[in-house]
Amino acid sequence: MPHSYLSHLYCPKTHEHYDAGQIQQLSAVGSPLLVAYDLDALKGDWRPADLVGREASLWRYHELLPVLDPNNVVSLGEGFTPLLRTPRIGRELGVDDLWLKDEGIIPTGSFKARGAAVGVSRAKELGVRALAMPTNGNAGAAWSLYAARAGIEATVVMPEDAPLITRNETAISGAHLYLVNGLISDAGKQVAQAVAEGGLYDASTLKEPYRIEGKKTMGLELAEQFGWRLPEVILYPTGGGVGLIGIHKAFKELRELGWIPADQPLPRLVAVQASGCAPIVRAWEARAAASEFWADSQTVAFGINVPKALGDFLVLEALYESEGYAIAVDDAELLAEQRKVAELEGAFVCPEGAALYAAARKLREGGWIRPGERVVILNTGAGIKYPDTVEVDVPLLQPGDRLPR
Amino acid sequence: MPHSYLSHLYCPKTHEHYDAGQIQQLSAVGSPLLVAYDLDALKGDWRPADLVGREASLWRYHELLPVLDPNNVVSLGEGFTPLLRTPRIGRELGVDDLWLKDEGIIPTGSFKARGAAVGVSRAKELGVRALAMPTNGNAGAAWSLYAARAGIEATVVMPEDAPLITRNETAISGAHLYLVNGLISDAGKQVAQAVAEGGLYDASTLKEPYRIEGKKTMGLELAEQFGWRLPEVILYPTGGGVGLIGIHKAFKELRELGWIPADQPLPRLVAVQASGCAPIVRAWEARAAASEFWADSQTVAFGINVPKALGDFLVLEALYESEGYAIAVDDAELLAEQRKVAELEGAFVCPEGAALYAAARKLREGGWIRPGERVVILNTGAGIKYPDTVEVDVPLLQPGDRLPR
Repeated sequence: MPHSYLSHLYCPKTHEHYDAGQIQQLSAVGSPLLVAYDLDALKGDWRPADLVGREASLWRYHELLPVLDPNNVVSLGEGFTPLLRTPRIGRELGVDDLWLKDEGIIPTGSFKARGAAVGVSRAKELGVRALAMPTNGNAGAAWSLYAARAGIEATVVMPEDAPLITRNETAISGAHLYLVNGLISDAGKQVAQAVAEGGLYDASTLKEPYRIEGKKTMGLELAEQFGWRLPEVILYPTGGGVGLIGIHKAFKELRELGWIPADQPLPRLVAVQASGCAPIVRAWEARAAASEFWADSQTVAFGINVPKALGDFLVLEALYESEGYAIAVDDAELLAEQRKVAELEGAFVCPEGAALYAAARKLREGGWIRPGERVVILNTGAGIKYPDTVEVDVPLLQPGDRLPR
Repeated sequence: MPHSYLSHLYCPKTHEHYDAGQIQQLSAVGSPLLVAYDLDALKGDWRPADLVGREASLWRYHELLPVLDPNNVVSLGEGFTPLLRTPRIGRELGVDDLWLKDEGIIPTGSFKARGAAVGVSRAKELGVRALAMPTNGNAGAAWSLYAARAGIEATVVMPEDAPLITRNETAISGAHLYLVNGLISDAGKQVAQAVAEGGLYDASTLKEPYRIEGKKTMGLELAEQFGWRLPEVILYPTGGGVGLIGIHKAFKELRELGWIPADQPLPRLVAVQASGCAPIVRAWEARAAASEFWADSQTVAFGINVPKALGDFLVLEALYESEGYAIAVDDAELLAEQRKVAELEGAFVCPEGAALYAAARKLREGGWIRPGERVVILNTGAGIKYPDTVEVDVPLLQPGDRLPR
């Protein structure tokens, strides 16, 4: 059996095929490329029982990942993250069957590790020696560290006000790191110019085809961890939306493989954004096929501050296909939920993850989430990466003082 | 089969037995209590093959953990952390068969989650409603969050200069958090006084018997992940030393169960400390049974700034029994290694973990680590929890600037 059933790449806009054996960036019409597998062959060769006893990482699904030779896998042990029952916050929200998929428990403390692990591994396999990308922080940190492990040179450009921790992670990897006194779009232009000069692989979000495959494993894991019975609703904090695209792709592939029933509806996906940056929500409300640039965006949830995503049309397609929803929440709401989740469940989720609880509360109150439905919160990172979002007022004692009772 | 084969507690100094069914703190002579299991019964009931397909957390070893009823388990998905080959830094150190057990990939980003998960679970089982502890940061954060999940009230006292992130983690859990303008020993006195007034479970390091059992699972995992063939050397950053005590206990229990051969020597354990706080090293060099208080201790590796550990005699016993070593390294050395490990392996380890590479380098150069030996670095936490230890000097660009090539 081959290690991977990778078949080819294709443009979702024109359906044209591209050779996966070559380095590819965007399609001829400027669309992200998607990865196709030989699912017919895989269907005969692979069964859920084959997963039993495999390593507890996303590489347990290597048949459905794009790396042909296991020697090219660049891993820090990412994936197979915890899926936790959260009954106390669930009761509080009126969602009794509420689960937390916790992507804080992963190398670099953010789900970006999945895209980086698969993206860098495949880049290594294709002979990439140097890559470049703009980042709001977490993706740059993850790609830099995985590139370091792969022996690939990384160049990363980050807005000056990106979280300090992600700056330090990127710097310590030995990457060529630059700050820009501007936005991620300014960083993106600088990377595009450097790429155009030649010699650099463009690892910008969705300008390479493989990070979606890494993010897809969140969907594969949810399916396996729930015993191949999918939940009714999955909430996802949506910036670039790669994870949402990937999760939906995972479920469709599992359905083609026959691992989940063809007549079972796929989970309704909910794109959650911040009120200060909600281009997908605006597009979804208008039933549009693509989003418009969101000017002067702002939110404490830095990872979802993406005014215009390259894959917006794929995100919207996944929402429409799955009969999902798009909803925005205020920073004050998400910060209040972050505290509640920590107090009731002991999970210190990131602000982006906290936004999902605020969204679930609204969707339950409005009746869109129905009583008894199984709902998954996909927390994309560890709260410890954003210490500044927690407002703390702690009493200071002198040695010898008694503790107040 | 019972969920746990817990038998009783005993004092390692007097060998007196204590009832595990009651809340216990220190023994009558002021020693930490250790947990004993009915290994004879377990030997007949449990085989390595029984672990296949179990959940990827430390609870896969529940027979050898002290929680009797699975309903009392308080889990955030902790344990079964990655064990990674690190050949590039290995070649650099002259240790070809070098591995990294990465405890940064765990809830709260630190190995303290293991002790907290098992300690809080067992506290819940015994009916504890409120606990208190002093902390240098990570343990307080972990115990606060697990206590929140368990519905147990936590009171935590932390030095004012403990890492900011751990302060925020503790605060957001809803714990009663106090800062003290002093050392952890001042915090310890305040907690002891509050405990003496009644109504609080003393969760200070080794004043409750169960956190060792949580830490022990690092040893169980290493054994399983290496296919029940133990490595020759394990390096461990030693503050309170609970993990080192636990790992050694794990191997002895596995030997009694017959899961590792009785005639195979146990791994030589290396206690690594900072030059600015090395009481165990000083005691080990003098072949003493206990350590002396280290005055004016200081190191950037906050987690190993422990001037006198309650369990020092157990740490030293494990070093002597395993024919191990104790060694101190300078802050400058460990910070240089932290950067090297990130650049060569993509792992952003904490300063305590980085100290182990500096120690391995010395031990290899001195010949104590022999060519071909399998050596494990036990990194106790994520580098992202200590952003201030990374010195970063990053060029700042203006929008429109070209990237330097």
